[in-house]
Amino acid sequence: MKKILNNPENYVPEMLKGLLAAHPGRLKSAAGDIHCIVRADAPVTGKVGIITGGGSGHLPVFLGYVGRGLLDGCAVGDVFASPTSDQMYETTKAVHGGAGVLHLFGNYGGDVMNFATAADEAAMEDIETETVLVADDVASAPAERASSRRGVAGMIFAFKIAGARAEEMGTLAEVKAAAEHALANTRSMGVALSPCTVPQVGRPTFTIGDDEMEIGMGIHGEQGIRRGPLQSADEITDQLLRPIMADLDIVNTEVAVMLNSLGATPLEELYIMYAHLRELLQAENVRVYRPYIGRFATSMEMAGASLTIMRLDDELKRLLDAPASSPFFEQSQYV
Amino acid sequence: MKKILNNPENYVPEMLKGLLAAHPGRLKSAAGDIHCIVRADAPVTGKVGIITGGGSGHLPVFLGYVGRGLLDGCAVGDVFASPTSDQMYETTKAVHGGAGVLHLFGNYGGDVMNFATAADEAAMEDIETETVLVADDVASAPAERASSRRGVAGMIFAFKIAGARAEEMGTLAEVKAAAEHALANTRSMGVALSPCTVPQVGRPTFTIGDDEMEIGMGIHGEQGIRRGPLQSADEITDQLLRPIMADLDIVNTEVAVMLNSLGATPLEELYIMYAHLRELLQAENVRVYRPYIGRFATSMEMAGASLTIMRLDDELKRLLDAPASSPFFEQSQYV
Repeated sequence: MKKILNNPENYVPEMLKGLLAAHPGRLKSAAGDIHCIVRADAPVTGKVGIITGGGSGHLPVFLGYVGRGLLDGCAVGDVFASPTSDQMYETTKAVHGGAGVLHLFGNYGGDVMNFATAADEAAMEDIETETVLVADDVASAPAERASSRRGVAGMIFAFKIAGARAEEMGTLAEVKAAAEHALANTRSMGVALSPCTVPQVGRPTFTIGDDEMEIGMGIHGEQGIRRGPLQSADEITDQLLRPIMADLDIVNTEVAVMLNSLGATPLEELYIMYAHLRELLQAENVRVYRPYIGRFATSMEMAGASLTIMRLDDELKRLLDAPASSPFFEQSQYV
Repeated sequence: MKKILNNPENYVPEMLKGLLAAHPGRLKSAAGDIHCIVRADAPVTGKVGIITGGGSGHLPVFLGYVGRGLLDGCAVGDVFASPTSDQMYETTKAVHGGAGVLHLFGNYGGDVMNFATAADEAAMEDIETETVLVADDVASAPAERASSRRGVAGMIFAFKIAGARAEEMGTLAEVKAAAEHALANTRSMGVALSPCTVPQVGRPTFTIGDDEMEIGMGIHGEQGIRRGPLQSADEITDQLLRPIMADLDIVNTEVAVMLNSLGATPLEELYIMYAHLRELLQAENVRVYRPYIGRFATSMEMAGASLTIMRLDDELKRLLDAPASSPFFEQSQYV
């Protein structure tokens, strides 16, 4: 395990301590628990609060999207482990500015269960909540069982769209609808080239041959749809795009594209993939309205990449274009 | 070599093709050569142009800092190889808005030689140029031979400061002085945990034991100052900070800090390091005015990190705070 760390058991609390030390003007903890991270100005009176939650090891996901025009808070779990329902409840309470709170998070068992409990606790305190699950990974289940799909990098488009709608002072129903609208138009697909190591475990999450890749593997090493020889960038890109296009009709539309490194894969390789992706999309008369190329949802040092496509309409374009700012995600007015 | 690529020989041109396809509103090539990358609005009339140049494989360095409030252009070489003097000259010409051009780049033999030739060519066309070399890596030579040091992540502070001064419509002499002032107050130190692989070569740049690290190693695998067992995050952080503090008196000052992953090292580990770094700095009454934590200068998939410190005064704070925007680096008004 070649990591820069102290005691593996303290990986998450030390990371959070560094985070709060680095960005005191932008982030704070709530309820005396360092695992409840909220905007420094939370709660914003009259604004719908949006929170997410999930395991650590995916920076910038999840807490990296707590910021202006994005999320209000995040309940932070241990590496690849759900935060507790109590942490979710305390985070909910800390961002409640009187207009209710949206729970917007990936479709993972522990998170679903704990957020349900947290919503019940919030209801007892007369805090209205709504829930939207992110389930964008087309590799994780067929279209007939789309609601059982896992949530991956597509959640960032949902954070962005819902966050912008909340910043416009939309109601809880409107913010929820914006998130659902974004997700109805969003699909993702990934490829893994190498595993990562959970610090407390000390060994790789899975093994894969030196000349192999696995298409559709989950960000925690969940089994993909096909393991085979490592192919070229062009071939890989094609295999990420086709299942998305089979699931979401984007021909003759405008889209936002997110080409995401899972960690170790360098930006250079993402741009090589993008060169071919753009040609593939042009051939289908798909226009890229705004590309996001970088590390947005990782699995620590895993090598690999994911592609996310969001089909756009005027409302989604307006909300996507809104400025946003967190320590991990800055979007100015320039494209 | 577990990379997502097509023909290794086309690594850089395909990457550049993807870059220009992704960001047409922000970047363009000059002189019909895809290796000459400039701002889409170049040349900006009356503004001093700033260009850099160097080998590929370090994204966001170098071309990632071409943008508003930053650089005007970048001559792009092959992986870890200098661009040609002609590419540097064409980039110079393309960003010359009538106020001259600053050549601001790392202290590497090939780049120094080629930029000198490019400056001569520019002079023959009556384009005034000035040169500032970045030599911030304290590991690469002792203080007595500071001018022979290599340039590493400290160059980004120089880009930021000089870029802001140029945006204020400073003269060529003023922009040069701002870059020199930034660099006189900037030092860096790195640690490598694993090598990277140059695509055309196909094997790692160096070998290192599974339980080893090398303090002071250069970003191309240049020999460091000490190889030994992998230590804790706290110990590593201490060993990056001490040589910087021995070279630059920062006690009782305000500083900007850049904690940079060399590629594969995840953000989580940088924040673990930052937690301890901030305590070390507080003990010396050093206040962190603005932290930069992320991937700013990499060596593809190399694991490791570097620390850069810039000692601040009022002028450097003002220029550091100015907004900046490139596809790889966004700085809003918020800290």
